[in-house]
Amino acid sequence: MDLFIERDTLSRGLARIQSVIERRSTHPLLSHVLLHARSGSDGNAGGLKVTATDTEVAFIGDLEANVSKDGQLAVDAASFFQIVRALPETTVQLTLTGNNRLEIRSGRALFKLPGHAAEEYPPLPAFDAQGTMSMKESDLKRLVEQTSFAVASDDGGMYGLNGAYMEAVELDGERRLRLVATDGHRLSSAEAPYEGDAVITPRTLVPRKALTVIRKLLGSSTASVEIGFGQNAIRLTQQGQVFWFRMLDAEFPDYNAVLPKECKHVVLGKRSELASCLKRVMILVADRTQAVRFKFQPSELDIRVHNVDRGESEESVAVSLEGEPIEVGFNAKYLQDILSVLPEDDVRIELAHPLAPCLVKNNGHDDAFFVVMPMRLD
Amino acid sequence: MDLFIERDTLSRGLARIQSVIERRSTHPLLSHVLLHARSGSDGNAGGLKVTATDTEVAFIGDLEANVSKDGQLAVDAASFFQIVRALPETTVQLTLTGNNRLEIRSGRALFKLPGHAAEEYPPLPAFDAQGTMSMKESDLKRLVEQTSFAVASDDGGMYGLNGAYMEAVELDGERRLRLVATDGHRLSSAEAPYEGDAVITPRTLVPRKALTVIRKLLGSSTASVEIGFGQNAIRLTQQGQVFWFRMLDAEFPDYNAVLPKECKHVVLGKRSELASCLKRVMILVADRTQAVRFKFQPSELDIRVHNVDRGESEESVAVSLEGEPIEVGFNAKYLQDILSVLPEDDVRIELAHPLAPCLVKNNGHDDAFFVVMPMRLD
Repeated sequence: MDLFIERDTLSRGLARIQSVIERRSTHPLLSHVLLHARSGSDGNAGGLKVTATDTEVAFIGDLEANVSKDGQLAVDAASFFQIVRALPETTVQLTLTGNNRLEIRSGRALFKLPGHAAEEYPPLPAFDAQGTMSMKESDLKRLVEQTSFAVASDDGGMYGLNGAYMEAVELDGERRLRLVATDGHRLSSAEAPYEGDAVITPRTLVPRKALTVIRKLLGSSTASVEIGFGQNAIRLTQQGQVFWFRMLDAEFPDYNAVLPKECKHVVLGKRSELASCLKRVMILVADRTQAVRFKFQPSELDIRVHNVDRGESEESVAVSLEGEPIEVGFNAKYLQDILSVLPEDDVRIELAHPLAPCLVKNNGHDDAFFVVMPMRLD
Repeated sequence: MDLFIERDTLSRGLARIQSVIERRSTHPLLSHVLLHARSGSDGNAGGLKVTATDTEVAFIGDLEANVSKDGQLAVDAASFFQIVRALPETTVQLTLTGNNRLEIRSGRALFKLPGHAAEEYPPLPAFDAQGTMSMKESDLKRLVEQTSFAVASDDGGMYGLNGAYMEAVELDGERRLRLVATDGHRLSSAEAPYEGDAVITPRTLVPRKALTVIRKLLGSSTASVEIGFGQNAIRLTQQGQVFWFRMLDAEFPDYNAVLPKECKHVVLGKRSELASCLKRVMILVADRTQAVRFKFQPSELDIRVHNVDRGESEESVAVSLEGEPIEVGFNAKYLQDILSVLPEDDVRIELAHPLAPCLVKNNGHDDAFFVVMPMRLD
């Protein structure tokens, strides 16, 4: 391997793989990035391919590079990234020398990293797409952002809740991909239009780590992302980048039973005002329960915390209420999570009674909704 | 207590005390701030006085406030600060109600904090100044910044090294306060002119925590700070703020024996170039030893790391050397600490031989110097 590459191109490429790398893995090579330089003289596109995997997820990126000699090598991803970011000049030379060492040259700086032969790197499984669809990058990013916080954490509970469920739905003749997540206390649902063939089963579940990586990889462009559905894996492809992940081996429960019904109390308010009021009142909330009291009145919402140890806080914010006044307890963190992912400022809250599931969404928008279970007030 | 105060005045005052407060103290009131409101109707200056102490150090600040009713109360400092920073309006009302509760009002927000009567708050000892001197705020801040990193950490070693030593010296008829710190591996010395009477003994030792608080309290103005020397305490006074601390109960060793002598190798270089080169080469340094190899040559310094596990790095930087070439090992972190507090770009490094103490300072400046013990190279 012998090549020249722009420092910023290499740095951006290595930044993308950091969320894939397992630093505390028992397999030493999973903390490594596989470099594959191709001059393109064999007719294939030339450049530097970087691969990272923890065997559950994998990222492959094609970086532009001026390759004079082909070669492959795996080096420690964290050290390599730290070095590249600190290099003094804008151009970097990478050379593979004897005994699997990577030499990194830039200006007067020289680094020699010990590496492993590419053959030792864990091979990526073959991917056989049984269907392919595409959607806007910004839409897919939104779906993940609006749902991933509601995925159950790994410590206990139903295994099927440890991922976000993909569902294909049709609305007014438009095909839409829906992502749903719940931890049993709250539920998020978000959807966006797609084109092509979605191959969905009750086991099409995106695990937590894949959601985290997708959030970091995707930007806010309207360019198209291709989503391929394999036997037990999903592959996202976009402009020289491939992200692959195994689906969670579990089944998502039927969530329709917990969706709110017959909500006689409908509250309209402003997201920004609710969020800043809640943030203040929450300062004194009890760490364990996060319990906050919401008193919905015709033109005003009173938010109140009573913490035996730390004190009391209260503040009111203007809302409009349709239906009778109602008082409900919420986990403040759950509401805060929802308010932080609502794209518009008009908020609609629907309640049936103080212990029934509560619906939160942007008023007049049907591409995302959120459900929170209230808490019993003392 | 009943008063109105500007939110930003109160917030700045509470920010200053955060470094004094002991959050994990066994005495619950040491996590509290004592508030004392005085209307000034008794002829004294009115306002809100805030006091924080851990019994080893104490801060007292006088804040401008419109007090209609006198009163005192101690409340949890962290909660109070968090609330004040988040308040929605620029003016805040503080009211002491029955049962030692502090009510905090701003806009539509109301907080009620449980408090303790002022009588429960630990009293500050009387301070009897036996001498008083003054120096520029920016100078005192510099002395602390240039020395505090060399103070020994508390875990082992000689107790007398766990603080910075104050010494009064005279240079060309000018009286100067010198601060010296050493952990046995490196030493920092910095000095600045003062006026008045310094009362110094071999036990005038500023403990680590006091240095940390002073760094945070002082700004870069040329206004005067008054330093009062008491029996076993020192008091800094400046514009409505008082900071008091107990001296370390130990004796500082005679450090003159370790100062470099007969340095036949004198190196001149640029601080910025040395620092950025060292930062890169250090990426692969071994965590335990931090050992970096410096090869001083007539017009070039080669900096090199050889780490058996992580790889090798090297880079050269332009310097001028007077005397024979010399190769020395250093703890990279120690040199980095020094380079980060040198105010000027011209650096002078003086060496006697590869295992003798090495001197580092700004070339042509005598108000600070630094000594580092080299490491034995394999």
